[in-house]
Amino acid sequence: MTPSEITDRLQSELPLTRAMGMSVVSWDGAVVTLVAPLQPNLNHADTAFGGSISCMGILAGYALVYLLFQERGISTRVVIQKSTTDYLRPIDTEITSTASLPNPAAIEEFLEMLKQKRRARLTLNSQVLSGKTLAATHTGIYVALLY
Amino acid sequence: MTPSEITDRLQSELPLTRAMGMSVVSWDGAVVTLVAPLQPNLNHADTAFGGSISCMGILAGYALVYLLFQERGISTRVVIQKSTTDYLRPIDTEITSTASLPNPAAIEEFLEMLKQKRRARLTLNSQVLSGKTLAATHTGIYVALLY
Repeated sequence: MTPSEITDRLQSELPLTRAMGMSVVSWDGAVVTLVAPLQPNLNHADTAFGGSISCMGILAGYALVYLLFQERGISTRVVIQKSTTDYLRPIDTEITSTASLPNPAAIEEFLEMLKQKRRARLTLNSQVLSGKTLAATHTGIYVALLY
Repeated sequence: MTPSEITDRLQSELPLTRAMGMSVVSWDGAVVTLVAPLQPNLNHADTAFGGSISCMGILAGYALVYLLFQERGISTRVVIQKSTTDYLRPIDTEITSTASLPNPAAIEEFLEMLKQKRRARLTLNSQVLSGKTLAATHTGIYVALLY
């Protein structure tokens, strides 16, 4: 899928991402990167709202799991079980969020568990940046359920 | 402040809360309750997007800290340092989020620390409900900085 196709899919599944102005800027088969402009995500201090930062962290991980299954033609429902965001510094420019697939062994274990139990859990970390500077880290536990 | 005044304040500080349709429905001096309709916060499974649920948890705690200072006439900047959401079950109706002030001793300790160090940290829990059913718990660490 191209970044623009992934953007369309996320925006159609999750209308709030349109209000946030979120779009996917790159996907190379291992790393996905999303951006959102500051304006719709502002807080009272003219930096990014903590809720928007958490959303961007959640979305990078969700996009990865979505792409992992999409590229393998596996139909699942993916939900988030736990989301943790550590805010390190304010974001005063475009919000960038990026996440990388885990190593192949961890992916195989996840897919094998899904096949056996029809349900499997994957922990994914994402980094949220202010421009090029790390501003928050997000850890999401995502659960996939086989249809 | 009335619920409608708090709603206006949050919506003007945080434009994303308008897109979410968030409003404050009650504040009795100890407990604040916020709601948001499902529609703008939907996910791919026609239940609430995990990011919206985290936002509602963050906002209930943030509203409490805001009100705590507002009622005492203390000017601070409040930022979130850490946000953790545990998603327990899907939300398929209006999203309700509620948070309660901690006990008076904990509040006094927080305000005393703020006076001494010009910076203090408060942990607040919020509950996010699907109608009347508990659907997620949120823990936020909020930092207040005295102007």
